[in-house]
Parts: sequence; C-alpha cells; structure tokens
Amino acid sequence: MQLPPAPARSFASDNFAGAHPAVLDAVARANQGHAGAYGEDRWTRECEERFRGLFGADVTTLLTFNGTGANVLALASLLPPAGAVICTEWAHITVDEAGGPERILGAKLIDLPAVGAKLTPEHVIGQAHLIGNPHHAQPAVVSITQSTELGTVYTVDEVAALCDTAHSLGMSVHMDGARIANATAALGGGIATLRALTIDAGVDVVSFGGTKNGLLAGEAVVFLRAERAGRAERTERTQRTDLADRAVYLRKQVTQLSSKMRFVAAQFLALLEEDLWLRLASHANEMAALLHEALVDVPGVELDGPPPVNSLFPVLPRALIEPLRDWCFFWDWDVARHQVRWMTAWDTMPEDVDVFASGVRAATEAFASKN
Amino acid sequence: MQLPPAPARSFASDNFAGAHPAVLDAVARANQGHAGAYGEDRWTRECEERFRGLFGADVTTLLTFNGTGANVLALASLLPPAGAVICTEWAHITVDEAGGPERILGAKLIDLPAVGAKLTPEHVIGQAHLIGNPHHAQPAVVSITQSTELGTVYTVDEVAALCDTAHSLGMSVHMDGARIANATAALGGGIATLRALTIDAGVDVVSFGGTKNGLLAGEAVVFLRAERAGRAERTERTQRTDLADRAVYLRKQVTQLSSKMRFVAAQFLALLEEDLWLRLASHANEMAALLHEALVDVPGVELDGPPPVNSLFPVLPRALIEPLRDWCFFWDWDVARHQVRWMTAWDTMPEDVDVFASGVRAATEAFASKN
Amino acid sequence: MQLPPAPARSFASDNFAGAHPAVLDAVARANQGHAGAYGEDRWTRECEERFRGLFGADVTTLLTFNGTGANVLALASLLPPAGAVICTEWAHITVDEAGGPERILGAKLIDLPAVGAKLTPEHVIGQAHLIGNPHHAQPAVVSITQSTELGTVYTVDEVAALCDTAHSLGMSVHMDGARIANATAALGGGIATLRALTIDAGVDVVSFGGTKNGLLAGEAVVFLRAERAGRAERTERTQRTDLADRAVYLRKQVTQLSSKMRFVAAQFLALLEEDLWLRLASHANEMAALLHEALVDVPGVELDGPPPVNSLFPVLPRALIEPLRDWCFFWDWDVARHQVRWMTAWDTMPEDVDVFASGVRAATEAFASKN
Amino acid sequence: MQLPPAPARSFASDNFAGAHPAVLDAVARANQGHAGAYGEDRWTRECEERFRGLFGADVTTLLTFNGTGANVLALASLLPPAGAVICTEWAHITVDEAGGPERILGAKLIDLPAVGAKLTPEHVIGQAHLIGNPHHAQPAVVSITQSTELGTVYTVDEVAALCDTAHSLGMSVHMDGARIANATAALGGGIATLRALTIDAGVDVVSFGGTKNGLLAGEAVVFLRAERAGRAERTERTQRTDLADRAVYLRKQVTQLSSKMRFVAAQFLALLEEDLWLRLASHANEMAALLHEALVDVPGVELDGPPPVNSLFPVLPRALIEPLRDWCFFWDWDVARHQVRWMTAWDTMPEDVDVFASGVRAATEAFASKN
Repeated sequence: MQLPPAPARSFASDNFAGAHPAVLDAVARANQGHAGAYGEDRWTRECEERFRGLFGADVTTLLTFNGTGANVLALASLLPPAGAVICTEWAHITVDEAGGPERILGAKLIDLPAVGAKLTPEHVIGQAHLIGNPHHAQPAVVSITQSTELGTVYTVDEVAALCDTAHSLGMSVHMDGARIANATAALGGGIATLRALTIDAGVDVVSFGGTKNGLLAGEAVVFLRAERAGRAERTERTQRTDLADRAVYLRKQVTQLSSKMRFVAAQFLALLEEDLWLRLASHANEMAALLHEALVDVPGVELDGPPPVNSLFPVLPRALIEPLRDWCFFWDWDVARHQVRWMTAWDTMPEDVDVFASGVRAATEAFASKN
Repeated sequence: MQLPPAPARSFASDNFAGAHPAVLDAVARANQGHAGAYGEDRWTRECEERFRGLFGADVTTLLTFNGTGANVLALASLLPPAGAVICTEWAHITVDEAGGPERILGAKLIDLPAVGAKLTPEHVIGQAHLIGNPHHAQPAVVSITQSTELGTVYTVDEVAALCDTAHSLGMSVHMDGARIANATAALGGGIATLRALTIDAGVDVVSFGGTKNGLLAGEAVVFLRAERAGRAERTERTQRTDLADRAVYLRKQVTQLSSKMRFVAAQFLALLEEDLWLRLASHANEMAALLHEALVDVPGVELDGPPPVNSLFPVLPRALIEPLRDWCFFWDWDVARHQVRWMTAWDTMPEDVDVFASGVRAATEAFASKN
Repeated sequence: MQLPPAPARSFASDNFAGAHPAVLDAVARANQGHAGAYGEDRWTRECEERFRGLFGADVTTLLTFNGTGANVLALASLLPPAGAVICTEWAHITVDEAGGPERILGAKLIDLPAVGAKLTPEHVIGQAHLIGNPHHAQPAVVSITQSTELGTVYTVDEVAALCDTAHSLGMSVHMDGARIANATAALGGGIATLRALTIDAGVDVVSFGGTKNGLLAGEAVVFLRAERAGRAERTERTQRTDLADRAVYLRKQVTQLSSKMRFVAAQFLALLEEDLWLRLASHANEMAALLHEALVDVPGVELDGPPPVNSLFPVLPRALIEPLRDWCFFWDWDVARHQVRWMTAWDTMPEDVDVFASGVRAATEAFASKN
Repeated sequence: MQLPPAPARSFASDNFAGAHPAVLDAVARANQGHAGAYGEDRWTRECEERFRGLFGADVTTLLTFNGTGANVLALASLLPPAGAVICTEWAHITVDEAGGPERILGAKLIDLPAVGAKLTPEHVIGQAHLIGNPHHAQPAVVSITQSTELGTVYTVDEVAALCDTAHSLGMSVHMDGARIANATAALGGGIATLRALTIDAGVDVVSFGGTKNGLLAGEAVVFLRAERAGRAERTERTQRTDLADRAVYLRKQVTQLSSKMRFVAAQFLALLEEDLWLRLASHANEMAALLHEALVDVPGVELDGPPPVNSLFPVLPRALIEPLRDWCFFWDWDVARHQVRWMTAWDTMPEDVDVFASGVRAATEAFASKN
C-alpha cells in the first residue's frame, strides 16, 4: 500500500499536541524572581479573579495539575459520607482513571449504559430507589462529561434538566469539562454559552480543562454553587464557603497542590486572554469538521454525521487499520467493530487534514482494488 | 526600625524560586509538534535512560508532578496489605501532606520523635514488637527524608545501617529525596555519593526531587531495588519488575500521570545535564553557609553550627520577627521558641545574602539599643 | 380479599429465621468460665481443625461476624495494588454492601451483566484487554457467588473453567459462599461435592456462610490456595502462609475480629457437626421445591423451572403484590416487571409452604374473578 | 516456685470472661420464629427506645458487632472531608485497631502523649494552629476513651471542658466507651452520672460498650447530639437527623450491619434491664479494688493508688513475670519497666482474687528468700 508522507501532526489525541506559544510565553514571563508558594502569588490571584469574570459570579477556583486530579478533587468535595457517583459507563472517571476515584474517594461509581455517553434525567431518577436503603451506597453526585467521551455534547437544556432532577433528589452535579471549551464552541461559542451550560444550568462544580486545549499541564476546579443539595436552610454564601473551604485542604490531600503554582496560573491567564480558550477549541472542532467533510463520501469509511467537537469515530475495513496506524498513529475505539478514534487538536492545520484524508483515501482505494 | 531595601529574592523557601533558565529552555525545545501522550515520547524514554545512568543500574523511573504525589506513589508501591510506615514526627509525609498518605494509602504512619529529624536503627527496632501482633498495623516501610525537614543530613553509613535493619526485619526503605541534591552536595557531592547514599546503601525507592531544585514542577520516583523485603526466594529481576509494574498503574490511580509528560521529562533532562542538579544544590547550600557566617556572631540571633544544607533555624528576639518578616518574608518554625526558618534557593545571590544579613543585623542593633 | 391466617414463618429471607437450637446450645456450652480472647481459645482451634477436615487440606480459616465482613476480608487479602474485582452486576458485593468494598478496598468492582447472575470464562477474557494498560485498574480477582443472588448454581465444571481462565490470566478467584451449603446440596450434596466445587476447582478463597444457614451471626473466610495467581515461582506453602498471614492483620483492620471469638467458633462447630450445615440447606432447598410445585400451575403466578436452591422469583399481577405482602412479608425483586422474591429457610416447615401457597392461590383466584 | 492451684478465672482481660446468663437467656428468648432482618424487628426497636430512656433524650442508637466497628462508624459519621482525629497515643483507635481507622476513614489520627491517657483542653488547643492551613489535615474530632486504656477516668468536669473547647474550635467529640459502664460506676454510678458524663457534658457520639461487660458480642453507637460543630445555623433536629441518617448507610458500609440484629439487641436489652450494666461494672471495679488491697503492701509488687476501674498496672520483679503468667495468664504492659496488666471482669469472684493474690504473694516471697 502506497501512502503519502504522513501529516506533520497526528490525529491520535489532543494530548499529543504541545502547548500554545502564548502559554509558554506566559510561563516564561512568570519566571521572574521569587513568588509565594502554593498559590500565594499574584498570578494565582489574578487567575482566580479571571475565573470570577468568566462565570460572572463569586466562584472559587482551585488549580490542579491534571484532569484526574481535578475530577477527584471535585468529587471529594461533593460527596457526603456513604455517597456514590452516578455517571455513564463511558465516563473518564470510571474508564480511564485506573480506579483512582474508587481508591481516593472510597466511593462507588454507578456507571450506567448511556446512548452517546450522555446521562438523562431518567438515568438519575432510575437510581432514586436506592435513596434511603441502608444496603446501598447513596447516589449523591451526578457526574457528566462535557463534551462527552464519545464526542457528543449536552445542550444547555439537557444540562439544566439534569441539574434540576439531581437537585430535586438531593444530589449535586459535577461536570467533567476536560473539553468544556470544545463543547462551548460547538454550542455557539461565547462566554454566555459557557455560563448557560454551567452556572446558570445549575452545575455545582466544574473541572475546567486546560491541558487538552493548549496548556503544558493544568486544570481548574471551579466551585460554581457550593450548596450541597438538600441543605436548603443554609445561606448561599455559607454553603459556597463551606464546600470550597474543605476543597482547599482536599487539594493537598489528593496530591494536587502545586508548590510553584504561579506556573499553572500563568498558563490559564494566557488561555483566558482574549478568548484564546474558545479560539483554540473552535479551531480544533473545525478541523474535525473538515476531516469529516473530506472523508464522509469515501467508500469503506463509515462515519456518523458531522462531529460536534474534535473527534471522529469511524468504522474502517479491518485490514486498513494497522497500515494506517503505522503511517500516522491513532487509537482503537471498539476493536470488535473495527472502530477507531481520530481526534484533532488546537494545532491541527488544514494541510494536516488534507494529507491525512488523502492517505485514508489512498488506503481505501488500494484496499477496494484488491478486494 | 530602619531597614535597607529588601533583597531581590526571599529567604522563605526554595519553593519561592522560579525555574532555572535551562529548564525553561528545555520545555520550549520539547514543545515541537506532536508527541505520544502519557510518557510514550522520546523525552521520557531519554529521561528514564538518564536515571539508569545516574544510578548505574537498571532502575525504573516514574515521573510525577509533585513531591506529595511522588511520596504517595512510592509508598503505595511498597506497602503490603495492613502495612504501616515508620517515619519521624517531622516527616513531610506526616506533617505537610494534609493527611494525603493516610487517605490514599489507607495506612498508618508511625511518626516517632527523632533528634534532628533522623531515624536510627533503634527507632526501627523499637517497632519490631508490633510484628506478628494482629491488633497492630504491621511496620512495613521505613521512610526517611534526605536532607531532613530540619536541615540535617544522613551519612552514607547511617542510611546503610537503617536499610540493613529494615531489611533484616522484612521492611523496605523509602527515601523522600525532595532535597536529595542538597544532601548529596553536603556529603561531598558527586554521583558516587548519590549512589552510595541510595542504591548502594540499600534504599528500595527514592523520591528524587526536582521542583525545589530549579524545575517548574516535577519529581521522579526511582525504583532502585524492587525486592520486597523478606521475599528472598524471588529473583532480583522478577522483584524489580513486580514492584515497578504495579507502580505504573498506581501512578495513574493516585492522579500523578501527566498526559503531556514530555514537558516533565524535558525539565529533568535539563536538570541532569552536566550535573546541573548538583551545581544548583551546592550553590544553595553555599548561600546558606554564607548567611550563617554573616550572622553567627550577631548578638540576639541564636544559630546552631554551620548548616549542612540550605536552611537555617535561628531563634530571634520575639519583637524582631514580625518587622523582619514584613520586610522580607519567611516562615515561623517553632512559635513558642521564637524560632524561624530561613532557606536559600538555587537562585539566591551572594548580594541577597548580604542585604538580608545586613537587614537582620540592623534590626537586632535597633532592638538592642532600645532594650 | 379473604386470606387464610398467615404462615408461622415468613418467606422473606433466610435472614428472617433464627438460630438452630443446636447452635444456641453450643453457644451456651461454650459460655464456661474464661477463655483466651481474639481466637486464642480451644473452640476456635477446633473450628479451624474442623475446616481442615472439611476441605481435606491444610486450609487457613478466619472467622468473621458477617458476610460483608467476610467478603471484604477475602478481597483485601487477594487484591494487589491497583487491582480490580470482576463480578456480576447482581453480586452482593456490588449491590448490597453499601459501597463498603469500594471504601475499604479502595478498588473498583467491574460489575458485568450476566445471565442468571453467573460469570463465564468469556466475561473474564473480555476484561483481559485492560491488563497492562496504565489507565485502567487491573483485573485481579474474579468474585463469584455460589449459589447466586438469582438462585442459580454454578456446576463444578463451570467453577473449574472460571478458575482456570482466571489463573491463566494471573487473577485469583473468590467465592462468596453465603449460601454455599444450599449450592452444595443442590449439586448432590456431600463433602465431596463441596471440595469439588471449591478447593479442587481452584477457588483461592471462599466466604463460607453461616448466618443464613442457622447461626446467630458468623461467617468463615477459608484460604484454600494462598498462591497469588501468576507467582509460580513461589512454593505452595510459602504462598498460603503469605496470604493468610496478612489476612490475620486485615481481619482486625476491617473491624471483623471478635474478642470473644469462642462464641462464633462454637456456632460453627455445631453447624459442622454431623453435616448439620448440609441438612439445613437441603431442607431449605426442598421447601422451595415444594412451594414451586404447589404454585407452578396457578394461573397468574409466573415461575421459572424448579428452583435449584431456596428462592423463587415469581412474577405476579401487580395488584396482588401489596395485599400478599401485607399478609406475609416478602421483598420486591424487579418492581418494573412485578417480580418478587420468595425464600425459604432452614426452619421453613411443610405446613408453612402449604399455608403460603394456599394464600397465594386464594389471592390469585380472587383477583381472577374480579378481572 | 510453689504456687497454689490457679484461680478459676484469669486476670488477663474482661474479654476473657463469657456472657452473663441473663444475656444468654435473652438471646434464647429472642430465638422465636421469624423476625425482620437488619434491625427491622421488635427487639431492636425496643433497644433503641431503651437507649432513649437511658440518656433521657431523643438519641439515635445503631448497634454494631464490636468496639472497633463502633469506633470506626462513629468517626466516619463525624469526620468532614480532610478531617483528622485528635486522641492520645494510648488510644485504642490508634494502638489496637490494626490501622483500621486510617484505612476505613482515610484520615489521620493525631495521637498525642498524655498523662494517664487523658486528653486535656490544652491538647486540643495545641492543635488549633493547624486549622486553616492547607498543608495539614484539619483537626475535626476529639476522641476520648472513658475509662481510659490506662484505667483512669475523666471526671464530668473534664469531659465538659474538653467538649467546650472542641466545640468552640468547630470540632466534635467522640467518646470510646468500651468501658463506659466501669467509668460510670467509678464516678458514683447511676444514670444521672452517665448522662452528666456524656450528653450533658456535650459529647456528640458515644461508643457504648457491651462486650467487655457481659455480652457475647455487641456495642452501641449512640448519637447524642448530631450537630456537627460549627454549624450553628442549623436546627438541632435537622442536625441530629443528618448525622444519624448518614450513619445508617455507613454502618453497612463499614461491615457492621448484622442481619439477625435481634440477637444483638436482645443482649443489650438484658444488659440495660434493672441496671445490670452498672451492677456488672461496679462488681468488676470492686474486684480490682479488692486485689489492690490484697497486694498493695506486698514487697516487690509496685502499685499505684487504688484503681478507679477494673485494671491494675503493677511493676513486678522481672523474674516473677513468666512463672506467674504461666500459672495464671495476663499480659505485659510495658516490658521495659516489667509492668504488667491485671484486669478483673464482671464474673471475677472474691475467691478468684484471694487465690490470685495468694499466688502473687507466694511468688514474691519465694523470690525474696532466694535473693
């Protein structure tokens, strides 16, 4: 099989991309002399302020190193004693974090089959019979991923409906937003969309992703509404304080407190500057759309509709997968179905898409002519 | 009280310093196009190779974000079911990690009073009566800090004696080497010293510090001898494989697996290049010695002997502490005794020491003349 | 609806039954003067010996208070660092233990859909792709329930095939035998059957139930083969010693060490005397068969084939469930399908079955005439 | 050395004693037909009512199997995220529970040196500097043992002062009352004393011991005041409900929910009937006093003052310890000082004391004549 030279950038994962130059510059600029450790520095304070601006509310932001750490910190803050987490069976927290949530939280993840990796109010209601039964861990937090592990996106109404259901049952809502920027861009972009999707919809805590969107390493856990569900008698302020106050200790406890935190904060400052986070995510989404467009009519490449965010999950002829992967690496998704995942990143170039698409096309043609 | 302008760099902590320029350069150089995620990249492979060279053995190295993460990962690897960790009551793992080890390991830390924050074989032997008693967590890992939280240093013989005792009782030895470079420099420097202190002395796993020695963020857990104590019948190779193999999963589980790991690896590559790690630590140590020299004869400043590494623990007149701290920040150590901690860093300049010493001198003189 | 007087004994659960008189007598006989605490007594030693006789091997037996405790102790002994447990989605450990396994073990339960609540080798093989992937908890223990939560039974061959598959993949096998007596009786009874099902089939550790089979409270964790899977180089003796040795500390750690253990041991001595365990379980099984026979032809009562053990899972007209339950309590099984669970116990009498069956018949007839 | 025949009952531990006949009778009486499982039975309801009467308040009582279970359940209910427990270095939870609290709670025990194993307000205040520091687990629960592991007793005023201090710092108070009956008897006995010591003094949750005081196995966790410290804005009723509600799930989660709970409840009903708990404990205390009286003037037996409760901690000539122990078993306390522990139980008879004292006297005389 004759294939063109591989594209400069892979289609394996947005984690394969490096850091945006503005992010590196910000780190270099923050590398001036001494600064308070563990977040007692001006970059971190400014970053916290920037998140308050982003969400238009007095939110509390705790920076962490990575997404697993952010998720564990968020959940550790939200879980009451004997509480359990409801999520989909595709959720990163249950599939890809090596049992860390179970170990560190000491809590059960109730991971449910879900079309498109999206929870519905019915999923949550379907667990309500466990409430009050002393033989069962008590569903206490609903954790949704936005955009999902299957490249789908919750609409604002869907998130709001989930939050309403969860809160009415005394549960909190966590959003794993490792790719929240891609989801925001997919839904029309803009800060108003972000707020509608999160704080306005009723999400309690969001893991706001950075690493997959152009940082070296960094995520932010943002406490939007600190009220623990069902404690209506407490004031909003007390409630937020309470949750976020405990989270400060939990961050260190779950190993996610950076001593030279200015360097995480500086990365986020760059990302939040002039909507860079949105621009990078929009671009990644567009590159996926371009790839979809280039391949949707290619015989042998089975694709769903245009991708909302930055990933495609094509089904390929089995014989093509290995040669294509050797040429330009990507991951299997569902081996049984010959399904793989292609993912674009903030730095994917249109010419990368062209080259990759032409490689795939060449491979399918060679395959077709042979069969 | 009239004080000179504060020094450019504080004496609060080596965590207040930024990153060495060579480290930042290495990160920027690694920021080229795409690379495999989660350590499947050439920087990480080279870094692992570099650690094998450093220790002169087929060691396994796992990079982490921070020291708490490194310690938890090391201990999680070493602890058998129902095992406990012996350490001093000064140990970072018991004092400064917010209960993370207890939470994540689910294990007791047996934290013992210890002169100079140094464990002795007698400490270990003193816990041996717990072995075999079903009412007690079983002492299984001896964790020592090198250099210690009190700025002292274990000699090679002391480490070897501890390892021998621990191993003879079926325990493993973990070294929290957040400042192992400072300790190595203090003991005469050089790779031979490092090896003598660690792998040759019998240490099983070391947390090899980077952040306090000029990195942005990064530590390395190095499995030197993977044999779990007391399993003599297993081959050396099997044993190392076994421990380090489990550690690979544990790293993700304890939230310490970086997706863009090349950027942690690149930092270490810079640090290990041409003994930068030793040169930076030696320099920090020398600056502490300079500060000691400058102040040892100042009335009112009570100091121990010359500092082995990069920290001093002076006792000051109580009235001086606040004004001096306002002038140039540092931490209390023992409030009851009016003891504080001054710490130098890789970037402390002789002129910083001069200015700081002259400030302290001016303050003590003003104080003396007033009393 | 006119129903006869309710039966003397309910059909809710074998937990509703009390203790067999021989068990109470044994406790009373053991209540003589002083005896060593925490198992250092002659009843416990005799009980351990009795289990060695039962299994025909030098097994190690640790008594516990209850089934959740037994399961957690067994799994804590078997799990390596970062290990996960494979079980069915019906498993008591995942459904009915309130998240205790996740909390105490810090481990993920991989709970799989399974026909008849029975795992197959295919289930285990289907998880093998997780092995070696650092993003996933590592499948390490296969936990099966015998008889299952759905009243089905694994054959000897099925258990052996599961053990072979598990061991070949480096995993261990735990059997939750809360109703192992019922399963043994169902498969033809006798000690030979018990051994064939467990130690001969390759099960590593069994939770041997007592409470549901006529004890006040008491279960036994029996280490049949202490070899951790995949450590072929270690001798059988070393291996058993190792696992069971750690379990001694783990039992106290997981709160399951009884101080006056003679009273748990005495109960088991009575149960193991002259095959009482088998006779009680056979009787319970027979009573369920009797109930099945009495109701299998009743219109409106949907039943599967004759029950292998002591539970039936009938589907009833929805309108009948509440009145019948009010008359003689039992639990819902699947509310959506109007399925309930009827269970017999060691003390269920044929007249209880008669009365219960006649009540059900009367209710269905009343219902039919009304509709 | 010529010693008389050993006494009928040992002086090793109150755990060596069996169950009081009234307790066994109650169990036998409860063994009638079927009863609801997991506490849904009339014995348990009556027992809960009995505890409300005992404490003169609407307390919530959860029965458990043993003391470790009771303590872990109580602490799991009280601990907020990142919370730590303050106790003495003698505390059963830190010394004798095999690391179970650390494993199951995932929390640090701050175990402090304390004269007579008694915490003071100063101990608590001395940890207050940790509050608000993100590097430290947050002191959240003060756990005291009454009577203590050293056989001392907190006065009512001492408990009240500890509770006041703890609450003023936002902490809760747990009392490990494995021997609360002995303490109550020592302080003048009576229900008024019990209430003064616990609910009136401000204790939040008590582990109310049964096993050491004549039960087969059984402890009760009593939630006296469910208010979590520092949440002044919540109503008393809400607060109690909240804590105890979560505890219901936690009991199962920590493996302490008995399926045939009526048999635990029945034991407590017997114990609480006509002050049996007090009478048994008073008797045990008196037997210790008798033993003290009999030996206080014997040369070679170093004793403190009369024992408040049921244990003595004599220092003996080293050469006597082994022969005496072989004659009538007891435990070492402090091997270095040749200190042992002698303990009486509810069933110790005056003639046991006479015989034991005469044996000790004979041994010391033989020893003296030889030296």
